[in-house]
Amino acid sequence: MRLAELSERSGVPIATIKYYLREGLLPAGHRVSATTADYDEGHLRRLRLVRALIQVGGLPVTAAREVLRHIDDDSLSLTMRLGAAMWALPGAPEPDLADDDVEAARAEVDRLLDSLGWQTAHDLRTISPPYRSLVVALATLRRLGYDWDSALLRPYAELMHQAAVLGIDIMESAPSESEKVESAVAGNVLLDPALQALYRLAQQEETVRRYGF
Amino acid sequence: MRLAELSERSGVPIATIKYYLREGLLPAGHRVSATTADYDEGHLRRLRLVRALIQVGGLPVTAAREVLRHIDDDSLSLTMRLGAAMWALPGAPEPDLADDDVEAARAEVDRLLDSLGWQTAHDLRTISPPYRSLVVALATLRRLGYDWDSALLRPYAELMHQAAVLGIDIMESAPSESEKVESAVAGNVLLDPALQALYRLAQQEETVRRYGF
Repeated sequence: MRLAELSERSGVPIATIKYYLREGLLPAGHRVSATTADYDEGHLRRLRLVRALIQVGGLPVTAAREVLRHIDDDSLSLTMRLGAAMWALPGAPEPDLADDDVEAARAEVDRLLDSLGWQTAHDLRTISPPYRSLVVALATLRRLGYDWDSALLRPYAELMHQAAVLGIDIMESAPSESEKVESAVAGNVLLDPALQALYRLAQQEETVRRYGF
Repeated sequence: MRLAELSERSGVPIATIKYYLREGLLPAGHRVSATTADYDEGHLRRLRLVRALIQVGGLPVTAAREVLRHIDDDSLSLTMRLGAAMWALPGAPEPDLADDDVEAARAEVDRLLDSLGWQTAHDLRTISPPYRSLVVALATLRRLGYDWDSALLRPYAELMHQAAVLGIDIMESAPSESEKVESAVAGNVLLDPALQALYRLAQQEETVRRYGF
């Protein structure tokens, strides 16, 4: 397809597509003449993913490029490609925290991972961004006077594990390894706001059931 | 306690506390002389909540003030106070979407709420920010070529309902109605990053279990 059709089918303006091409977020089309190039379904899929990362995930262009680089690195195993891409996604903001508070939260998170038997999360803890995010979130909760510990977090962790299993089952239905990784990354970025909204709807529902209006 | 102790116990710098006082995010202390005021445990709790909303939740001062106004409005029922405060929290960013895509997503979300029996979420749908966020998230997923529908969302919704039940059980342990609402709002703001981190850790764990490294 030509650039105009790629724009129409993706809903992304031509000027934005050209910008993504210049920034290396979208591979060049197949050149058919000095002035025109041809784009395929792979370009359309990639364009949608870039859009998801930037517009929904709020990633800066450099971070999006890093995520895509890992998705495209077929010298790595599926686990490593997915892990590297997910780790390049930005985490939550980090408030100022005292070292002691962070250490205490880290000990609770380690206790949680042990009790869950999440060996990989434990082995990778010194370099894992989601591990760091969890420690920071817990340290913040405790700093603010909420007495959360591994026992309180555990049922949440089990629910999120069930959610992750659903996500990976969906990922497995993608035909190729590249598409599996793409689907998992896009799913993560796009599912975060959906899960947050579902949580709030459920909370409202449950509040009304318990206390009335 | 004096301002210096409030600062020490909360970890919030004195200049920042003075700014929150000026902006009406923190009620004035009990005046003990022309130049000194006294602060109590309620001030400390409120300061921690303000900090959570602004530093972790990323709320602008005006939005934080709005959330606090609802928390403090004891003319309302618990459900209404909590609902109003939660609704004043900012939602996910809204990408550009065509009206048709939004309408199709809305129909799927309505189907989902019907199948779950979430009557309140359905009744309030025209004014509910989390309903809107869910519609937008689903419309975006579908616009990007991911064929998500109510059947695919339903197990996620059931997991988030279980998570919301956990949260409300924790809320119920707070001694007063004000503290219940405060705890639920702070919990929501602070739990979002923790759930996201747990989801990613679980995904990594599950990927390694299925595919190895």
